[in-house]
Parts: sequence; structure tokens; C-alpha cells
Amino acid sequence: MRIARFSIDGNVAFGAVEGESAPGAEGDLVLDIIKGIPYTDFELSGTKVPLSKVRLLPPVLPNKVVAIGRNYAEHAAELGNEVPEVPVAFFKPTTSVIGSGDAIEYPSFSSELHHEAELAVVIGRMCREVPRERVKDVVFGYTCANDVTARDAQKREKQWARAKGFDTSCPLGPWVETDLDPGDLAIQCTVNGVQRQLGRTSDMIRSIEDLVVHISEAMTLLPGDVILTGTPAGVGPLNVGDEVAVTIEGIGTLTNKVIKRG
Amino acid sequence: MRIARFSIDGNVAFGAVEGESAPGAEGDLVLDIIKGIPYTDFELSGTKVPLSKVRLLPPVLPNKVVAIGRNYAEHAAELGNEVPEVPVAFFKPTTSVIGSGDAIEYPSFSSELHHEAELAVVIGRMCREVPRERVKDVVFGYTCANDVTARDAQKREKQWARAKGFDTSCPLGPWVETDLDPGDLAIQCTVNGVQRQLGRTSDMIRSIEDLVVHISEAMTLLPGDVILTGTPAGVGPLNVGDEVAVTIEGIGTLTNKVIKRG
Repeated sequence: MRIARFSIDGNVAFGAVEGESAPGAEGDLVLDIIKGIPYTDFELSGTKVPLSKVRLLPPVLPNKVVAIGRNYAEHAAELGNEVPEVPVAFFKPTTSVIGSGDAIEYPSFSSELHHEAELAVVIGRMCREVPRERVKDVVFGYTCANDVTARDAQKREKQWARAKGFDTSCPLGPWVETDLDPGDLAIQCTVNGVQRQLGRTSDMIRSIEDLVVHISEAMTLLPGDVILTGTPAGVGPLNVGDEVAVTIEGIGTLTNKVIKRG
Repeated sequence: MRIARFSIDGNVAFGAVEGESAPGAEGDLVLDIIKGIPYTDFELSGTKVPLSKVRLLPPVLPNKVVAIGRNYAEHAAELGNEVPEVPVAFFKPTTSVIGSGDAIEYPSFSSELHHEAELAVVIGRMCREVPRERVKDVVFGYTCANDVTARDAQKREKQWARAKGFDTSCPLGPWVETDLDPGDLAIQCTVNGVQRQLGRTSDMIRSIEDLVVHISEAMTLLPGDVILTGTPAGVGPLNVGDEVAVTIEGIGTLTNKVIKRG
């Protein structure tokens, strides 16, 4: 099931996305409004609204976003980094999260903004010290993410709170797909329609199971928390006016325009 | 005014701390329960409960905790680090926050846990791109913090999400002092009553104004958000069974016991 969060006429709701459409023709899709919270038992209300009439919001409201750096060997190499012996884990704050269609604001302290297309794992249950064989039970679903990075600030600043945590640096969406095998999906990033990144999730150095075990060994994960799993090779610049799109096979397309911070 | 958050008989409230007491004799203090949320206009209810009858909770519920590394020259030197050209900013997640009297759980992935006594700044207003001269207007008050660190993991892992973000790694408390000049306060850490750290906030390399300007240049700060301002020299090991206390002049004492993670 594809679960979106959206606003319509000032109200916010979750809805199940119904229908099939070709990329770019999402106007044919409808949302069946959900009663309750999707992480627990919920019902479809039967009340339907066309996707074209709503504003999509970030599909989850995370308590925290834990991101993983250098999890694809070709990407580590393109930035001149070794594959790390231990996963590189950092946080993106909730104030950085935006949805599909929202604007990425070019930060004032950077002149080298980069896209990083990533598969995002959405946690469905409060958990810690998750054993490998139970990881599937704590995962709610998957969405597309863009780990937008101020590359110049990342090089200057030893920890990445500003470089990867500025407002609008964490687009998530368009919705969460709950029925998906994430093991070998194509992940693509385009800028103004031109392909920049193309990889497969099967090339991750650490699997989703590895990452959930590693992170939950240290900290409690809560329903709605998000894990970004690293980006494949091909990262590159974003400029004001660009439209960046992250497409993951079986999920959909997350699209954001880059604007001047106003 | 000193504002605490506490639970009594299963209810959670904010209260103004009244009375004076010698260190260790907090039993004489009373809490005047607050109507409303302390960041905005609020009233004292006049209903008072003795501090000895309540359980103190973390005095704020942050959306995010932004911490600063290497902000005292002697501390940078003791770990063999240069004073950074740009502040080292990282996040501690909300799942790491505990209050005074709560237990620090020794993490399973570390065998070198360290205390780091710090002055914590509590934000009172939603803000971004705060000009230096407006910083005082967005600060709600100050509390004590312990930036508990798995030093071995910090050395192994390039980003510090696990080393400084594990559950219970962010004790805050005992309360927020709203009337205080933070410019030159003694900051002390003891372990089992023996002094380990003693510094003065006037030795910070970057001032509170510098830090709020630097962080808010990148990200929106929300009421209740917390900025940890770095630790003076003298960091050292914590072991299971230890009682660690952070005392800041004009605020009070934050006390936590270290236990085995159960």
C-alpha cells in the first residue's frame, strides 16, 4: 500500500494512494482517507479525494532522521573517500524535512549545493537493539529521499549538522510504500530531466538489516523515524531554478525545485 | 525564575521553583505549578508542591539538541585536537534526553564512557538567521547538561550519531534558570564527589551569541530547542555505579547515576 500525508482545505490527513499512472500523470490517482494513524491498525474511510486536488506533505513526521554516509563504494570513491570500517551515521533534524513539491532553499552559507538520491526506510514500531531477523518487523515501509548537502560546508565543518541539516535539506516522499522488497531496486536522480545518478540498492555496502541493527544498538527508534541508506555515485551540483527528481523503482518520484532562500 | 518540569501522581506539569537551599538540601524547595507553557505568557497557579515529593523530568522537551564540540581551548588540547576554524556542530536526538535523577545507561557498544559538563542554552522563540544583537531575545534560559560520550566509538566513527546520541546520553536539568547572565559562570563536574572538571563560561572560544548566529544561519530553532556550548578541560571516565554531578553557578546541580543497560 502507498500511504501519503497531505493537506486539503487546511486539514491534514493520511491517505492510501489508489490507481496506477504513468510517471508524470499522477493526476489520475486518488487518496482514500485513513482513519487513525498508519503505524498501528487503521481503516480506510472510503472518502476519496483526487491527488491533483491536495498538497502532498512529508509522508511521515519523524522524531529523528538517521542518515548513513558512504554506503555505496562508487560514491565513496567519487569524493575521494575510503569505504568506512564502521557505518558513518549522522542526524538530519526534523526542521530539515519537506515533502514532494516543496522548495529546497539554497542556503546562504554555501555555494556548492549537491543532490544525493537515497532510499529511506520508515520505522513503524518503537524498538531498540533489534536482532537482524526482526528488522522486517520494525520497518513500516520505504520512501524516496534527497540528502541535500552543502558540499563546501561539509568539507569545512568536521561534523555535518549545518552542511546536511539546514532547513529544507531533507525532502521525503512522495509517499511510503509498505509492500516492497527493497533488496534490488533502481534508484535514479535527474536534474531538469537529465540523469545524474543511477544505481541499485543491491550495491549498498551495508544492508538495511545491518543499518537497523547498528543504529538501534545505540538508540531507540520510534514510529515515523527515518533511516537514509546512502547515495549511489553521480552526486553533483544543484542551482537556483533547478528541478531535482529522485525516482525509486516500486515507490515513485520525489520532485523539488531549488529556490533562493527568501 | 527557575522553571522545572516534573511528574507527580502520574501527572506532568511545569512549575516555578521557590525558596533557597544549600546544595544537597533541595528538600526545602517548593514548586508553584504553572498554568500554560513557559515559553509564552503563563501564570503561576498558586498551587504548591514540595520538590521532594515530585520526580524531576527533563526541564524542556526539545525538538532538537544542537551541541558544539571543542569550544574550550584546554579541552580541545587534552584530546589532542586543534581549536577548529569553524564551530563543530552536531545533533543529539530527543531519545537521548533524560532529567536530573534519571540513570545514564552504559551503552553496550562502548567501554570508554566520558562525562562532559556543559552550559545548555534553551531557546524560547521560533527563529532563524538571528542577528547577534537579537540573540538575547530568543534565549529562554539556561540549564546544566552532560554531553555523555562513548569516547572509543567517537574515535572509531567519523560522525558521532552513536557516540554522542545513544539513549540517556543527554542529561539536562535540574531546571531552567531564566534570569542569569551566562558570561562568566563557574562550571564544575564531580564524579562520586571528587572534582573532575572546573572551568568558567568566560573561557568559551565562541560565545553564546556566536553559536546562535552560526546555527540559526542554517536552521530554524524552535521553542524548547537546546544548544550545548562545549565542555571545559578535565573530561574522564564514567563507570557503572558512579554518580556524576554537573553544577553551574546560578543554576543548580544535575545529578545522574551510571547503571548497566538492562
